[in-house]
Amino acid sequence: MPTRRYVVGRADEATHPDSMRAALAEFLATIIFVFAGEGSVLAFDKMYKGRTTDTSTTPARVVMVALAHGLALFAAVASSMNVSGGHVNPAVTFGALLGGRISVIRALYYWLAQLLGAIAACLLLRLTAGMRPTGFMVAYGTGELRCMILEIVMTFGLVYTVYGTAVDPKRGSMGTIAPLAIGLIVAANILVGGPFDGGAMNPARAFGPALVGWRWNNHWIYWVGPLIGGGLAGLVYEYMIIPAVEPAHQTHQPLAPEDY
Amino acid sequence: MPTRRYVVGRADEATHPDSMRAALAEFLATIIFVFAGEGSVLAFDKMYKGRTTDTSTTPARVVMVALAHGLALFAAVASSMNVSGGHVNPAVTFGALLGGRISVIRALYYWLAQLLGAIAACLLLRLTAGMRPTGFMVAYGTGELRCMILEIVMTFGLVYTVYGTAVDPKRGSMGTIAPLAIGLIVAANILVGGPFDGGAMNPARAFGPALVGWRWNNHWIYWVGPLIGGGLAGLVYEYMIIPAVEPAHQTHQPLAPEDY
Amino acid sequence: MPTRRYVVGRADEATHPDSMRAALAEFLATIIFVFAGEGSVLAFDKMYKGRTTDTSTTPARVVMVALAHGLALFAAVASSMNVSGGHVNPAVTFGALLGGRISVIRALYYWLAQLLGAIAACLLLRLTAGMRPTGFMVAYGTGELRCMILEIVMTFGLVYTVYGTAVDPKRGSMGTIAPLAIGLIVAANILVGGPFDGGAMNPARAFGPALVGWRWNNHWIYWVGPLIGGGLAGLVYEYMIIPAVEPAHQTHQPLAPEDY
Amino acid sequence: MPTRRYVVGRADEATHPDSMRAALAEFLATIIFVFAGEGSVLAFDKMYKGRTTDTSTTPARVVMVALAHGLALFAAVASSMNVSGGHVNPAVTFGALLGGRISVIRALYYWLAQLLGAIAACLLLRLTAGMRPTGFMVAYGTGELRCMILEIVMTFGLVYTVYGTAVDPKRGSMGTIAPLAIGLIVAANILVGGPFDGGAMNPARAFGPALVGWRWNNHWIYWVGPLIGGGLAGLVYEYMIIPAVEPAHQTHQPLAPEDY
Repeated sequence: MPTRRYVVGRADEATHPDSMRAALAEFLATIIFVFAGEGSVLAFDKMYKGRTTDTSTTPARVVMVALAHGLALFAAVASSMNVSGGHVNPAVTFGALLGGRISVIRALYYWLAQLLGAIAACLLLRLTAGMRPTGFMVAYGTGELRCMILEIVMTFGLVYTVYGTAVDPKRGSMGTIAPLAIGLIVAANILVGGPFDGGAMNPARAFGPALVGWRWNNHWIYWVGPLIGGGLAGLVYEYMIIPAVEPAHQTHQPLAPEDY
Repeated sequence: MPTRRYVVGRADEATHPDSMRAALAEFLATIIFVFAGEGSVLAFDKMYKGRTTDTSTTPARVVMVALAHGLALFAAVASSMNVSGGHVNPAVTFGALLGGRISVIRALYYWLAQLLGAIAACLLLRLTAGMRPTGFMVAYGTGELRCMILEIVMTFGLVYTVYGTAVDPKRGSMGTIAPLAIGLIVAANILVGGPFDGGAMNPARAFGPALVGWRWNNHWIYWVGPLIGGGLAGLVYEYMIIPAVEPAHQTHQPLAPEDY
Repeated sequence: MPTRRYVVGRADEATHPDSMRAALAEFLATIIFVFAGEGSVLAFDKMYKGRTTDTSTTPARVVMVALAHGLALFAAVASSMNVSGGHVNPAVTFGALLGGRISVIRALYYWLAQLLGAIAACLLLRLTAGMRPTGFMVAYGTGELRCMILEIVMTFGLVYTVYGTAVDPKRGSMGTIAPLAIGLIVAANILVGGPFDGGAMNPARAFGPALVGWRWNNHWIYWVGPLIGGGLAGLVYEYMIIPAVEPAHQTHQPLAPEDY
Repeated sequence: MPTRRYVVGRADEATHPDSMRAALAEFLATIIFVFAGEGSVLAFDKMYKGRTTDTSTTPARVVMVALAHGLALFAAVASSMNVSGGHVNPAVTFGALLGGRISVIRALYYWLAQLLGAIAACLLLRLTAGMRPTGFMVAYGTGELRCMILEIVMTFGLVYTVYGTAVDPKRGSMGTIAPLAIGLIVAANILVGGPFDGGAMNPARAFGPALVGWRWNNHWIYWVGPLIGGGLAGLVYEYMIIPAVEPAHQTHQPLAPEDY
């Protein structure tokens, strides 16, 4: 019989120590990721302050920023994978929720932890770098709608990778390299999306700098795009790739270990 | 006795749900790969539109494009490895076919899915980036024949890596990092072939932009070269590296899991 | 009951062959890491000597130096992981000490080996490159206090990654990629910290060039920052993430294998 | 009792099919590695031919060439690891020989295969790129002796990484990522040695272009340096890191699987 189940949450889930630990792990992992991601943008600006006129979109910047995001996300996902499932992204949590891999209560905890982590990272950057966070915006000559679709496509690829490597009950040895695949597909997609809309694929990653740097231009597309793309990937993978009756050697739901 | 077998296909293979799932996985993985690969080319062009005269072949472009291809292919192969075998490339499928690791019917499904995936990725790029796909062509001062041989050599290296890490029944722990080796040999080869012919090693990767962008110059070499190189690698590895009588602890054919 | 234990050291630990081997492995791994890290800085300077006026902080330099550090640290940690635990960093050893994962005697051995390794690497660089090591300093317009906090945050991320992938008794398959995550979070953080304070996260990495090149400006922050950040990460992970009663299938303390 | 043994070779080893397969795997893997490594140098030159005066040592070149070497070596080692042990380098074979991990006959086979592979790769490059291979030489203002010591240090780091991740009987899960660590320490060291002497760490890598391009300046240092460094690493690891009496769960000598 099918093993999928939609769960609202166990009675004691909100106060259970495992939930607390998982939320703390999401919070700290999101700090690590957003600090390096947004920090690399500020570091680039620091190097060119007052020297050249338009360096906002050079290949060097895109490569540097893409690597910082990809490598830090890899470490953040790897170090939280066995505590919280290594989401580090509200869109991943949303995909896991629609796929029935995480309870509603757990998802709410994760979202709160991710948003707080992104804000904390940007406050730490403001303190250490002494610069106002930049965040994301649509590039000149590129429409908002187009960028929203871009975010949908890129986040679909990200959450599909999460499912194919970290969630699929038959993923086998791919589970070992799941955090690396997750980090590096984000780096690859930033090499595409960077010059158009920055390439967020993550509402928390966009929300932190927007709040701390108080820049809200085009902000809605960084919520709507990733959530649609991530949710779509969860549904497609769960209902079209994974067979309805899962094999006997199914492993435990990996996207939110509940018995740490 | 030898365990190699050439298979035309099981009676029900064309309509079996496993075949459908595998083809869908190839389709989606090819979208993820081609979207990042071709997208990084468009992203580079977007940054330099109208600013400099000849940026088509700079180290920054080659590094940026090579990384986008390598990292996205890694994620695409990793996330489809246990559903379809993670080919994402008609030349890999051709090598697996000549080596007897996949049936003819399955190969036809894969080729169709890969070509449709590449087309879909280029249509999505046209929609989101608003730019005409560029694709591949032979650089000024480099002959077509030379580039065809270049594609043969580079694709041989790619499919040899696929065999050595993902197919070989004695591959052991290399199976875990197979998708990474496959993605990164493509990145390394683009750092060589980029300034000469772009470095496709994949007919679907070349066909999508050619069709959507309607650019057919030198297009034949991106079919002939990769198919010769990939087929050659499959035959060499299957008949010269793997011993005729395989050991008892042989694992299931990994390049097309049929019992997902 | 809790399995954590603070150990001063076994009676024979200081003279036990395992301690000697572990210290030798730390010494050699630190040479490999610091030689590549500091060496890439000298290599960059060699290329631009006398040609341009201010290349100390360009994206190319930051990317080149970050990659050299990250990739070499990965190899250094991987090759010493099963002998010494792969610290290669006094701040990691300090975090492991505060978390109760290593004895005081072992920690003293490691610190000595790491400092000697960093000095040896810088002497080898002076001999082969014929240049005076550069080391770390605070960039113009950035305060010492800010950079110390920067070092705290970045080292917290590094040692948290060490704990989440290499120490946590439930780390599972993450142990395989622990050295890669550890190396690449350092690369990502250098892409942030590089233009501000160089991004050391490692007192030995800073001490070697300071001694051999005799440059002591701002040197204290590269000791205080990493030790605070690393110690904090050890305490937070050990007491807030890992449950007090560890599961029965707990593995051996991995940060200092004592029975090699 | 000690399990180390120096072996001259079994009576039938020279004609045994396993030896043939292993030599073929070394030959093909060296083609893949040298084609990408030397090819990336030619690709860089192709981009700048006649445009700028001195681009031989820019950060972009060093990063591009280092990545091509590191990523291709990773794939080459991974795909031959379980057939030949994945040496792809006469200095690695020499270290394994001094450490007693490979027989003399096997080593001779490997050296021949590696040298022929490097020559074949350079001939293929001459055919496809239509350019004369460049190979290695000592940079202006750097002495030969200094570069020889540089090669010793860098190759020591490489072969030490091979031993620590692929040979050590207690390497555990590090075996999975051994090829990646081996490839990436080469990339890291090229980021150091590139502007000084190119950073070969591999006599075959240097010999192929020297022969096909007929450039023999400073050639001896690319043999003497790597062989001293690699041999030293083998001896140090074998006799100072690995305990004399190996544990009962020792695995088979991994650097030359003889029963493929």
